[in-house]
Amino acid sequence: MTEFFKNINKIKFEGTESSNPLAFRHYDADKMVLGKSMKEHLRFAACYWHNFCWAGSDVFGAGTYDRPWLKSNDPMEVARMKADHAFDFFSKLTVPYYCFHDTDVAPEGNSIKEYINNFQTMVDVLEQKQAETGTKLLWGTANAFSNPRYMSGAGTNPDPKVFAYAATQIFNAMGATKRLGGENYVLWGGREGYETLLNTDLRQEREQLGRLMQMVVEHKHKIGFNGTILIEPKPQEPTKHQYDYDTATVYGFLKQYGLEDEIKVNIEANHATLAGHSFHHEVATATSLGLFGSIDANRGDAQLGWDTDQFPNSVEENTLVMYEILKAGGFTTGGFNFDARLRRPSIDAQDLFHGHIGGMDVMAKSLENAAAMLENDVLGKLTSERYAGWNDDLGKKILSGEMNLEQVAKFAQEKNIAPKMASGRQEHLENIVNGFIFK
Amino acid sequence: MTEFFKNINKIKFEGTESSNPLAFRHYDADKMVLGKSMKEHLRFAACYWHNFCWAGSDVFGAGTYDRPWLKSNDPMEVARMKADHAFDFFSKLTVPYYCFHDTDVAPEGNSIKEYINNFQTMVDVLEQKQAETGTKLLWGTANAFSNPRYMSGAGTNPDPKVFAYAATQIFNAMGATKRLGGENYVLWGGREGYETLLNTDLRQEREQLGRLMQMVVEHKHKIGFNGTILIEPKPQEPTKHQYDYDTATVYGFLKQYGLEDEIKVNIEANHATLAGHSFHHEVATATSLGLFGSIDANRGDAQLGWDTDQFPNSVEENTLVMYEILKAGGFTTGGFNFDARLRRPSIDAQDLFHGHIGGMDVMAKSLENAAAMLENDVLGKLTSERYAGWNDDLGKKILSGEMNLEQVAKFAQEKNIAPKMASGRQEHLENIVNGFIFK
Amino acid sequence: MTEFFKNINKIKFEGTESSNPLAFRHYDADKMVLGKSMKEHLRFAACYWHNFCWAGSDVFGAGTYDRPWLKSNDPMEVARMKADHAFDFFSKLTVPYYCFHDTDVAPEGNSIKEYINNFQTMVDVLEQKQAETGTKLLWGTANAFSNPRYMSGAGTNPDPKVFAYAATQIFNAMGATKRLGGENYVLWGGREGYETLLNTDLRQEREQLGRLMQMVVEHKHKIGFNGTILIEPKPQEPTKHQYDYDTATVYGFLKQYGLEDEIKVNIEANHATLAGHSFHHEVATATSLGLFGSIDANRGDAQLGWDTDQFPNSVEENTLVMYEILKAGGFTTGGFNFDARLRRPSIDAQDLFHGHIGGMDVMAKSLENAAAMLENDVLGKLTSERYAGWNDDLGKKILSGEMNLEQVAKFAQEKNIAPKMASGRQEHLENIVNGFIFK
Amino acid sequence: MTEFFKNINKIKFEGTESSNPLAFRHYDADKMVLGKSMKEHLRFAACYWHNFCWAGSDVFGAGTYDRPWLKSNDPMEVARMKADHAFDFFSKLTVPYYCFHDTDVAPEGNSIKEYINNFQTMVDVLEQKQAETGTKLLWGTANAFSNPRYMSGAGTNPDPKVFAYAATQIFNAMGATKRLGGENYVLWGGREGYETLLNTDLRQEREQLGRLMQMVVEHKHKIGFNGTILIEPKPQEPTKHQYDYDTATVYGFLKQYGLEDEIKVNIEANHATLAGHSFHHEVATATSLGLFGSIDANRGDAQLGWDTDQFPNSVEENTLVMYEILKAGGFTTGGFNFDARLRRPSIDAQDLFHGHIGGMDVMAKSLENAAAMLENDVLGKLTSERYAGWNDDLGKKILSGEMNLEQVAKFAQEKNIAPKMASGRQEHLENIVNGFIFK
Repeated sequence: MTEFFKNINKIKFEGTESSNPLAFRHYDADKMVLGKSMKEHLRFAACYWHNFCWAGSDVFGAGTYDRPWLKSNDPMEVARMKADHAFDFFSKLTVPYYCFHDTDVAPEGNSIKEYINNFQTMVDVLEQKQAETGTKLLWGTANAFSNPRYMSGAGTNPDPKVFAYAATQIFNAMGATKRLGGENYVLWGGREGYETLLNTDLRQEREQLGRLMQMVVEHKHKIGFNGTILIEPKPQEPTKHQYDYDTATVYGFLKQYGLEDEIKVNIEANHATLAGHSFHHEVATATSLGLFGSIDANRGDAQLGWDTDQFPNSVEENTLVMYEILKAGGFTTGGFNFDARLRRPSIDAQDLFHGHIGGMDVMAKSLENAAAMLENDVLGKLTSERYAGWNDDLGKKILSGEMNLEQVAKFAQEKNIAPKMASGRQEHLENIVNGFIFK
Repeated sequence: MTEFFKNINKIKFEGTESSNPLAFRHYDADKMVLGKSMKEHLRFAACYWHNFCWAGSDVFGAGTYDRPWLKSNDPMEVARMKADHAFDFFSKLTVPYYCFHDTDVAPEGNSIKEYINNFQTMVDVLEQKQAETGTKLLWGTANAFSNPRYMSGAGTNPDPKVFAYAATQIFNAMGATKRLGGENYVLWGGREGYETLLNTDLRQEREQLGRLMQMVVEHKHKIGFNGTILIEPKPQEPTKHQYDYDTATVYGFLKQYGLEDEIKVNIEANHATLAGHSFHHEVATATSLGLFGSIDANRGDAQLGWDTDQFPNSVEENTLVMYEILKAGGFTTGGFNFDARLRRPSIDAQDLFHGHIGGMDVMAKSLENAAAMLENDVLGKLTSERYAGWNDDLGKKILSGEMNLEQVAKFAQEKNIAPKMASGRQEHLENIVNGFIFK
Repeated sequence: MTEFFKNINKIKFEGTESSNPLAFRHYDADKMVLGKSMKEHLRFAACYWHNFCWAGSDVFGAGTYDRPWLKSNDPMEVARMKADHAFDFFSKLTVPYYCFHDTDVAPEGNSIKEYINNFQTMVDVLEQKQAETGTKLLWGTANAFSNPRYMSGAGTNPDPKVFAYAATQIFNAMGATKRLGGENYVLWGGREGYETLLNTDLRQEREQLGRLMQMVVEHKHKIGFNGTILIEPKPQEPTKHQYDYDTATVYGFLKQYGLEDEIKVNIEANHATLAGHSFHHEVATATSLGLFGSIDANRGDAQLGWDTDQFPNSVEENTLVMYEILKAGGFTTGGFNFDARLRRPSIDAQDLFHGHIGGMDVMAKSLENAAAMLENDVLGKLTSERYAGWNDDLGKKILSGEMNLEQVAKFAQEKNIAPKMASGRQEHLENIVNGFIFK
Repeated sequence: MTEFFKNINKIKFEGTESSNPLAFRHYDADKMVLGKSMKEHLRFAACYWHNFCWAGSDVFGAGTYDRPWLKSNDPMEVARMKADHAFDFFSKLTVPYYCFHDTDVAPEGNSIKEYINNFQTMVDVLEQKQAETGTKLLWGTANAFSNPRYMSGAGTNPDPKVFAYAATQIFNAMGATKRLGGENYVLWGGREGYETLLNTDLRQEREQLGRLMQMVVEHKHKIGFNGTILIEPKPQEPTKHQYDYDTATVYGFLKQYGLEDEIKVNIEANHATLAGHSFHHEVATATSLGLFGSIDANRGDAQLGWDTDQFPNSVEENTLVMYEILKAGGFTTGGFNFDARLRRPSIDAQDLFHGHIGGMDVMAKSLENAAAMLENDVLGKLTSERYAGWNDDLGKKILSGEMNLEQVAKFAQEKNIAPKMASGRQEHLENIVNGFIFK
């Protein structure tokens, strides 16, 4: 147990009547919902980077957090202290999983060799920590965007040596993820985009990125990694434009490089909204394309145009998200990773718990709502009825290709068809959803 | 010659010294640029809908335009008067092309049969007008979004009868386009999206739309239409979400239905910006994916979140667009159609000319700038140099698949690589571009 | 009772267990909350325009609603049928109030004299309808934006005759509002803005608008109207820029013309978000400036850049709004008017009820949540503690003006002050709010 | 001369034919425009912070710039090296002015006393540098937003001790500005806003900020500072909401605290667009309210929702800005300060020059365009004609207050007025502007 979190005990479920701010009100890990426990449904993870690497800085100001584990001048000591505090936190929070970038857990060092050595040392530490605490790895990833060398892209860099550096990190991070039993491996292309088209060869960069993704998939099979490879879409920030803009864009990219059966998406709420979509739109798009993988749970601010990465706190929004996930059969290897960070003035150790507890409760309550919606299935029935015509003769012949354009036009003309309009019932359906949320 | 435009003569090129507001200052149709005339490069078209069907209404107010051709109670007489005025306008404006929706040129009538009859009658009129004036058809299309029957989609409607009605319009509009010598056929899915996911089956609607596109392509080949089939992306409006969100999304859709070699995109400036992209991003994306077809030239307002469809007036923006188009070899069957409308208080006949003349001059000046950029080729050279490393051994082996992830990582580790950083020179490049624009 | 609504009975409270979609689940009009009935707190109104004037058209398509009251060719018969249906609807919905524009209830006619006559005739009808049904008038207003004459503004029009026309409508609408016992009079300046600065004299237009507002206030006192004059802020749409951008802008305008004690604001949710603010920001700003008047209850879509005017359906959002209202003492003459419209495909008579019932339930539930938050007052206490230092010596001397800049600097230097940082506790506070919403 | 800039000579005007990227193409300092030199019109300043304090970091990555002056472990040595390089840069760039925050030029130290000592030492250095180079101070300011102590505001902090700390910085920065002959003093309230209303007392914070502004104005008069006090509006970032949202908001704030004749605005292009306004809207609003002070020249990215602070490169945008400034009589104490930063991959010494040279040329060219527009005055005449009716009897009586609402309504009714509509000519006017830009 660390000094920093010493006044905080393992978080417990106490129900909605509890006035204890360090208790769960809705998340009851073993409670059964639609045949699985909440824990199995939600597969929560906390992340290393926002919680243990970031010190509360922003573009306009220095870090506000006074974290003991960041206070050594010895980078490896910092890494060890981070791990101590991280696993103490994960355990007390009772999340079954965590996630990391390679450079979150180990110092980059001053050369590629130092990087490799540092990382291997720390993977040993993580392995031991996992064994001690039972916390598992949801996914690992490589940070190929923070170091200045990646300022013009990693896989899409105009210099193949930078590509090679990134590939080295990915190679090591994939290896570590496999060794640590990680269930997925994530690729977020923070700088895989452009600042200006004036110095950019779009076709070339796309080819580079396509080849990198193929290499990753080939390597996965080579080493027998059984987890899922995930791309995390984001439209922009830090770049002016990122190639993995949103789920639909990633789909086109995967189809171009023949990877649509090999890679799925890790959808982040705030990335969805920055791309002009609702969070549940991105989830529904992914499930409809067979690409749904995992979730970075957070929220943006509807009035702000950057990635605020706030903790999820809307049951209304997440009920719709959870409904899409449940309809598609739930997570397989994915889970809810809190890619969320405290507001800069939230400087206390407890605040780290408040953020996550609030998020976990929101997701748990949303799960219950969505499960009730699915069991009752009034929405499903209304939707099926709406499309019922497509099971009739005309609909079937159109979809099967039995009728061509001319035949359909002839049919319409001969029958002098005059389709009857039916209400879309949107307000009614919205009321039904609210009926499930506010019982 | 119509009474309405009687005080306006054919617009002529008079150069930048002219103070005549009804003359071109930059657009000199026969001036040669990079071996082709401006007219051949720009392939301007004016549209029927904004200019001759819309009366100046908006969501908050009634039409402000007092157009003589809208004043009859007989819809076929309205259609004939519209055609008279439209072709008088096209001729005086000297645009070589025009564009229309089926329901712009002929009244819908009260049944599918009336629609077909009215449309056929008016296609005869159009054919005659084209012959008289020499104005050609850039593209035709079917309006499958304004009639109430399409309130929940055309191809994606839950009712296959509505699909059939739309298919009938498309069948007729494709036939008319072929007969009138149209060089493209456009599909804009105004209602091919959703208002709420609560009543929507995304996968089903996507299947319907995919089948419709296939039907269109099959029909094109069946009737021997030599033009290009174009999809016009738009992210939203009137729907909450439109399936053809942007060029990258359309690419994925075409790949899914095996249509990527059959359909190209018609890119609209204001649709690009509503989707969160710059106009030239969409053009560059299309050319890099082999999807570039045609342009709906207009502009949005950077502060407004809807489709303002203003006339293009930025040489700075369109120089970059034209540069991307010229780099890709220019238009083949496509062109610049002014999908632009006057502001509601611009009620005079002259205003219709001011809008188009301004837009044509902006595009002509942009063409000259872009041609100079291409001839000088400093930007091209700087970009080639930037990626030069990819022609070296490492780069080639990565892209060709000769090296796998592990081999790249081994290489990097053994060489202990430390890539050198090079400036992206964005500000320098932007100054170079301004140097071409402001000589 | 009208034929159109004949199958719908007066809506009743049936509680959350009810499965009747045409019943209230949370709105129990006579239920007491903080010493007042829900009905007295919420002061619901339905509007004339969206429900009875609009036929379901949008910029891209014709009306989808088949409303019997719009089917006559005689405009005065239309007006009478509208009134019959409107009051039948208001009664069945059990809203105590309604709202109207002059041109909603009576045809404009072909001249100012016809307008006045038609309007006076219909005000007689409304008076009788109010007496018969007990429905009261929350506010009246004049539509000085839809008629083409207002295309370049009403009060801010470059032509003083247009100003005079608008003033005439306002004169008549204020008179009608007084006669009908209206509790407020609203001014929304739909076209009081500009399309382009190139033809606009900002200072002149501001002067015109300032004078118009002064005239309205003078007239109010002259005729002894006891209601409140309200300005409704909106940033844009239909104009490129509207002078009453948001509450803070209206405050500056009122200060400039000495009207800050005479006019308050009517805040609309969707206008707040279009202006870049959260809904409760606008309410909190208004209450902090002493400007809070009334609410146009609706919602926008966080991904769309226009006024979608959807029915409110977020208890989470409106709990925060209601909390600000309750903290400020609740409504005086204002209320919640549903300035909301059905989605275009919601074509059934029942849909009008679904929209309003959903909105009323959301507001009722939000009221209950906010009342609990206020009674418990944990948020209030934490906020007071946060600012406690300002009640100490230093704080008081700063605010009272007892210390000047130099003295404060001297104090800081002499004491070598090093202020202690305290967490802002945002996540904790957000969890507390969720604790009230999801009990 | 510093080593870093040793290969760069003083930038000279070489005209549009020059191919030297380190020369001005449009900015010819002594060229006379409307009776004043370009230098006197434009009053260019370069800033300390982006150029000499920032090392190229962003939220997702470390600094990319290898600046020699940041390489010492002794903060005072860093400060001195910064000054050496800064004044070498200002001189070579030939900007007449520079700007700074207190903490840009001197280290904050570990206590308020250290801060004061360090700052006084460095002000001596600046004074000497100004004397040596002839570079003058456009404005000074205090950074009361970067230090963690300001995480919850400076003037609006819940703790009056933090207010006192900020006041101390402002006291010292105002003193230094006066001593260094600064022509303005700027207040940008980076953290003067809120993250969440849940912990915020809006009225209290507004009172604190009002008192602070009053203190600043009182102190200005007390010390006989002849410069202008400027507030710099920004809507958000880093806070969720900033109290000085835009010019109209600042106007209301100044009116509330009786400061509208004492404080003007420093308008930043990118802040304007983040607030939902065009850049020239903010300038026009400021001039129409008598608040126009100075400009932070930069640009945003129309597709990105954060402050990108790019160098201005649009002559089209800045011609409109310059036109508004010239119409209002030009700058008095203000000027164009480049609050702009290089893109992160622009790592070379030359890039600092490319950014500024491009910006200066854009502004110079825009000045020439705007001067031509003003001399020709066709826009001015068309606007005057448009409002001519307000000089007639009716218009005068309305504005003067001679007619009240009832009298205007009576007049309209008796005359049965039917105002004639006139085109707003927007497209024509836009073409006229383009005629001036592209001669």
